[in-house]
Parts: sequence; C-alpha cells; structure tokens
Amino acid sequence: MQQPLNVAITGAAGQISYALLFRLIAGELAGNQQSLSLRLLEVPEALPMLEGVVMELADCAAPLLRDVVVTADPEVAFRDADLVFLLGARPRGPGMERRDLLQGNAEIFSRQGRALNEVARRSVKVLVVGNPANTNALIALRNAPELSPRNFSAMTRLDHNRALSLLAAQCGCEVGEVKRIAIWGNHSTSQFPDLSHATVSGRSALALVGDDWFRGSFIPTVQQRGASVIQVRGKSSAASAANAALGQMRSWIGATPGGDWVSMAVLSDGSYGIAEGIVYSFPVTTAGGDFQIARDLPIGDFARERMQASAAELLEERAMVEHLFPV
Amino acid sequence: MQQPLNVAITGAAGQISYALLFRLIAGELAGNQQSLSLRLLEVPEALPMLEGVVMELADCAAPLLRDVVVTADPEVAFRDADLVFLLGARPRGPGMERRDLLQGNAEIFSRQGRALNEVARRSVKVLVVGNPANTNALIALRNAPELSPRNFSAMTRLDHNRALSLLAAQCGCEVGEVKRIAIWGNHSTSQFPDLSHATVSGRSALALVGDDWFRGSFIPTVQQRGASVIQVRGKSSAASAANAALGQMRSWIGATPGGDWVSMAVLSDGSYGIAEGIVYSFPVTTAGGDFQIARDLPIGDFARERMQASAAELLEERAMVEHLFPV
Repeated sequence: MQQPLNVAITGAAGQISYALLFRLIAGELAGNQQSLSLRLLEVPEALPMLEGVVMELADCAAPLLRDVVVTADPEVAFRDADLVFLLGARPRGPGMERRDLLQGNAEIFSRQGRALNEVARRSVKVLVVGNPANTNALIALRNAPELSPRNFSAMTRLDHNRALSLLAAQCGCEVGEVKRIAIWGNHSTSQFPDLSHATVSGRSALALVGDDWFRGSFIPTVQQRGASVIQVRGKSSAASAANAALGQMRSWIGATPGGDWVSMAVLSDGSYGIAEGIVYSFPVTTAGGDFQIARDLPIGDFARERMQASAAELLEERAMVEHLFPV
Repeated sequence: MQQPLNVAITGAAGQISYALLFRLIAGELAGNQQSLSLRLLEVPEALPMLEGVVMELADCAAPLLRDVVVTADPEVAFRDADLVFLLGARPRGPGMERRDLLQGNAEIFSRQGRALNEVARRSVKVLVVGNPANTNALIALRNAPELSPRNFSAMTRLDHNRALSLLAAQCGCEVGEVKRIAIWGNHSTSQFPDLSHATVSGRSALALVGDDWFRGSFIPTVQQRGASVIQVRGKSSAASAANAALGQMRSWIGATPGGDWVSMAVLSDGSYGIAEGIVYSFPVTTAGGDFQIARDLPIGDFARERMQASAAELLEERAMVEHLFPV
C-alpha cells in the first residue's frame, strides 16, 4: 500500500462531511489501494458530536483508513495536508446582511489560509465548498502567499452536475451522452450555466433544446436549484454537495476525458475578459494534478453579458472583504 | 452497459437510506459498469421529503442511475426486484413494550414479505436492516412461501465490522490482518461476538488479547456499541449502518476471500445445535450469489452457552409474533 494521503476536512461534524467521509474511506477518492489519514477540523463546541462520527468511521473497519485526527486547530488539521475540503462556513443568521456574512466567513478563511500557508504540503489541493465559496477561496489563497493560487479552487461542480442532469432529462438521453456543459462565474444565483458549447451525442445541445428553453427555463432552474432542494427537503443539499466535492477533487487529481471538461472556480487570469483577481468558475481540463482553463471558446453577446454580470458580483464581494487581505 | 439491476429500498427517506443511496449510484454496490433502477418505498407522510432526496440523486448526474421510482406501495417497489434493502421499521415509541415493537414491525414485514412473494424476481436478495432485524426477516420470509428462505438475510455486518475494528485497535494492527471474526445470534445485546476462531496475521487472536479482555471488554463493547454511538452522537448509527448494509449485500452477490468469512443472519438449519426456524447470525462464506454456513468449527462451553442464550432470545421473539405467520 502507498503512503497514506493526508486529507483534511473542515466543518467535519456537518452534514456534507457526514455524506463525504464514508465515501472517502471506501476508496471513492483515490482508489482502493490508497490509504488515507483523515484530519477533521471543527469548532470546539462541535467536537463532541464529531467524536460520534469518528466512532462510526471506526465501525466501518475500512482497510484504507490509516488514522483519524480530530482537532479545533487549523495548524494541526492542515499539517502536511495533501487534499483539503473546506466545508465549514458561517451560515447566514437571522437579520444578517450579505456584508456580515462575507466578513464573518472572511475571518474563518483568512485564518485557514494562513494555516495552510504555514503547514500544508506545497502540492496541496484546497477545495472550498463553504459559502460564499468563491470569495472564501479568494480570501484563503490571498492569505497563503507561499502557496500558488493554483492550489485553490471553489466548488461549482454541483451546479455543473445539476445542469448536466437537467439537460439530459430534457433531451431524454443518458448523462454520459452530454459533453461540454459549462458553469461560469460565482456559485450563486448570478452564475451562468452555459449550453453554448454543449453537445448531446455530438450534436449541438442548443439546437436540440432551443434558446427559449435554455434562457427561460434551464438557466433559472440551475441557478435556483439549491433553494428548490431546501424547499422540498427542508434542508440544504448535503449528499449531492458531498458527491460534487468528491467529483471535483477526483477530476483535479485525475484527468478529464478527451473532448470534455469540468467546471471549477479558480483564480481568474483574465481569460475571456473576466477581471483578474477573483475566483471565477471556468470550464477547465485537468491532467497530471493540474488544470487548464479551456481556451478559445467563441463567446456570443448573450453569454458575455451573463459572464460579466457574475464577475461583477464577485468584484462586489471582493470589495466587501479586501480590507482583510494581507498587504 | 448491462441490464439495470432493480434495487428496492424501504425507509427511503430515512438517515440510513440517505447514507446508502449515493454510494449505490456511485457504483459501490455492483461496480461502475452496472446501471441501477432504484425503487424507493416510504410511508405516505414521508413521500414529500423523499422527493427532495430524489432531487439530490438527480443532482449527482450519475451515469449508473437509470431511473428512480418513488412509491408507498410495496408491490410497486418490489416488482422484479433483484436486490432489496429493508431499512424501514417502526421505532420504539415512548412507553412501548418489546412485544408492541415486535408486533408493530411484524405487520410491516409480513406485508412486505407478501409483496416480495408476489412480485420480486425469484433470485431476489432481501437484506433486513430495520430492527428487530432478525425477527423482521423471519416474518418476511415466512410470508413469502414461494421464495426460498435463502433469499433473506438480516444484517449483523455492522456488529461484525465493529468487532473487527475493535480487535484490530487492541492488537495495534490493520483490519486487513484480522480474519474469522464471527457474530453469532441476534442483532441485539444478546449477540455473541466471537474471537474463538479469529486470527491476527495468522496467529490466534485469543492468545494475543487474552480471555479477560475478550470476555470482560470486547464482548460487552461490541454488544453495546449501538447505544454508545447514540450516546455520543445523539443519533443512531446511520452512515456505518449503510456501510455495513452495502458490505453485506456486496458479500452476498460476490464471494468471501479464501480463508475468511463474514457474519450474516440467515434461517437456521440446525447447525451448531441452534434451533431451526429462527433467523440467526452465523459465520458464512459466499460465492456465486449464495452463502454457506461455515462448517465444523469447534465450539467450546463458553461459546456454546452464549450462542444458545442469543438463540433463546430469538425463540422468545418468535413466540411473540408467530400468530401472525400464515398457516
């Protein structure tokens, strides 16, 4: 068996973690020959509940699980970390303004960024799931100047999967027949789920479903899917979020299949006229543990407007927290 | 891709189901080439919440998930079923006697047994997880006279995994080094988790850990582990139960490795002097979709007494519900 992968998870007593951990130790992350050392971070008041989760992890008798560390200290959780899932975030409380939410999370993610900077492996991959994910990822990476910004991404894979599933249902096809769905922008209702480049069994998706359905139904359904799940289920998405986090991390450490890509929010390099210095979801290909933003896609006027609208929201979010960036 | 497996799950809006479903559609049950058709059964009042779970299943864009049927009718859920997870059961309410609990569940499981009898594939594998699991399985199989009792088992894999993990921790070894742990009897505190035959890297486990630890610590810890998890976590085991259900079903449709076995509660054939006609956990080997009770194990006096005590409890349980068996 190989050296264990050090996998750190924050918000480890939460629902997404509970849906993720047991899949990790079953080998869904890096195969059934790769042992894992789990480092679980929680706020002190959640540590007792987390002990119950640790008992259940033991009760799986999973051959891949080498050890479990439970801690409230990010520097313990992130020491020599290879892969990090930042699931924990401050939820929006009653009467809380968006600015309060952003700033409350900025404190958490700046501290976690500094800890990653100090103690994580230089090859660490940090996936931010806790909302507002894109701006939380930006805060973390800005506080980790000795790591590359390419060590960080925020999750838009759940949006990507929702879009994929919705299109397949509309076309009456298998999800495997759909390629080149893209989520652009923020993991928020400003995101732009884009069918411009998508194909279904090699045919243009837009030609199959039509612009009216794309603009009037597909886009708002994907944008508002999180709220719809909460409305029906009475709780926010947990298992599907964990599934997407696992999928995004697997893509990042693996490789996208030829002719297809995935959506990942990464630090903008100015591609497609998106402002630099925000964490923005692009279609990316992956290979060898790295990602590349898909190049030279033709962007129509409608798409460009939607892409810039989501960038504008991310610039606004950044403006609310940038006083917390280190100088 | 092969024909989809029809997989039915009861109590589908519950916590164990929520921890199980997303692992099934990820390919953990029958590999990543085997598509699945899910049939989810719930009581009518839980169907709205189940719709939220179905939304999240769609949001995984899982290539293996062929379709999902949601129903409150067992004959719809079990039609042509290949594999069935009976997770749902009536929980013990305040002031409820054991007899009431058994009878309340007997009604559920006799109805489900009749439905399986009518509409399931003749090769169906039915795994009972809902407690009291052994007697629920007995009621179901007695109500399905046109199916073989060998189509039914109750889950003691969670106890088995807990025992495995506890022994490995005590020996400071990997779980993969432990073989031939056995759970005998009822999935209750009367169960007998047995180290008599167990080995650690080929050496006698009992010789390593000693009789005192085995009798004074190991046995009660495994017997009471469920209650310990509830005490710490504030909720009963869900993810570890789902993991065990998945493991037991995988063993049943697969094959145990040479020189090892798993624990499964099946209809007693009188082996080891255990009364016939109760569903009792034995060490079993599996191959080709069938199981065999491990033969010719030497049973000492201490073990025999514990094994018979759990059988006696199961005979008592049967006596409380057998008026509900069909004549």
